[in-house]
Amino acid sequence: MENEKKLVEVCFSPRQYELYKSHFDICVVIDVLRATSAICSGIENGISRIIPMDSVEGALELKNKGYIAAAERNGQIVEGFDFGNSPYSFMNPKLKGKEVVLTTTNGTKAIHSAKDMETLVIGSLSNLDALSAWLIKQNKPTLLMCSGWKDKFNLEDTICAGALIEALLDSGQFVAEEDSSVAAKFIYLSAKENIFSFLKASSHRKRLRKLNLNEDVKYCLTPNTVKAIPILKNGALEKLEIEHAEV
Amino acid sequence: MENEKKLVEVCFSPRQYELYKSHFDICVVIDVLRATSAICSGIENGISRIIPMDSVEGALELKNKGYIAAAERNGQIVEGFDFGNSPYSFMNPKLKGKEVVLTTTNGTKAIHSAKDMETLVIGSLSNLDALSAWLIKQNKPTLLMCSGWKDKFNLEDTICAGALIEALLDSGQFVAEEDSSVAAKFIYLSAKENIFSFLKASSHRKRLRKLNLNEDVKYCLTPNTVKAIPILKNGALEKLEIEHAEV
Repeated sequence: MENEKKLVEVCFSPRQYELYKSHFDICVVIDVLRATSAICSGIENGISRIIPMDSVEGALELKNKGYIAAAERNGQIVEGFDFGNSPYSFMNPKLKGKEVVLTTTNGTKAIHSAKDMETLVIGSLSNLDALSAWLIKQNKPTLLMCSGWKDKFNLEDTICAGALIEALLDSGQFVAEEDSSVAAKFIYLSAKENIFSFLKASSHRKRLRKLNLNEDVKYCLTPNTVKAIPILKNGALEKLEIEHAEV
Repeated sequence: MENEKKLVEVCFSPRQYELYKSHFDICVVIDVLRATSAICSGIENGISRIIPMDSVEGALELKNKGYIAAAERNGQIVEGFDFGNSPYSFMNPKLKGKEVVLTTTNGTKAIHSAKDMETLVIGSLSNLDALSAWLIKQNKPTLLMCSGWKDKFNLEDTICAGALIEALLDSGQFVAEEDSSVAAKFIYLSAKENIFSFLKASSHRKRLRKLNLNEDVKYCLTPNTVKAIPILKNGALEKLEIEHAEV
């Protein structure tokens, strides 16, 4: 019945999170270009824990204590760090079984905004089907939080949120009431045949193109390259262990 | 040349206004259902000044001093006030030449957020062409601020902002860089053939349908019913006097 359906909504920016948070049990943090795509790729490829830090200073402190540490600001690697937020850096076999510290312009900030949510998981186009299936299985009120760009709306996170909301609504177990959710689903349906081309005009694509990061962009915009669902536990993201036959 | 073009961007909510404000000279406040449509209809029909108040208490205080006062919260007329924010109420011939106090859930709040902008004008689908022509004539950095619903994104204001941005970009004098602007234009172009039907799923349409306000909605979604451009001067909205042959 309609009123037994669980709520799923899209929040366009961490700055809007306070308006939504009290109604949800699960928050999915999305930063397609590139933080959450990199996190999914790292966890899939065997990194044991990724510690999200909301400041460069905090990340540097851990680096000085001996951690492997990655930092990105405005699309570029921060000087003095091991790497930035390219998903390819997170696939390095040398990182298997290791802990990695990460701070980025938007994604790790969004994770910190939502860290008090009962359950916080990481979403990207990379783990779309695995994550949708798991969320449907949980059947709990779910907030899809776009990290955006410096607290503003962005298109690529909206498309990813739209893909997730479409899958959850299709299950018949969920309902969406906000206009942000209607818009995200509409934009996803308009973009899904060719996300890369749809995003030609997007601000962050232009930003990354200038930095010669087209290979990263192609990877991040390709759906379902991994099955890992990173989950926040004790301040770090680790692989969600899914029970046998649960998905 | 590209770098001589003026910036035009869309801000999805008054809560996001701080992120944008320093880059613009003109702010257009949009609350299609129904505050800014009502303000346009009132100013077109001869109301001399509309005084926007951000609280019911403030509006009541002025009412007690003898002002005609209108108040809406959550789509309904607030008890004790003369009327709410139906555009039809603002067409009443008895209001000609009068000052009217108005407070609404979203629109008057948005006006207050942006009242320090050099120039603040009121936009709606009702005055779309007149306003676009005037903005193009001004040729200044222009922010299109959607009032949204309780600080959240809404579809109808986004469609109106998208229509304005489309007109300004078409003039060749303006450039838009933010993803919110790209999305607003895309949503407008998708909706423009039948805005009423496009908004079927929107949250505020559902809210107003329950309140039997379909006639108001039809009026508010009909483009170019008026030519008035309300402008904020000394704390009140009045008719912008356009010089002969300026538009």
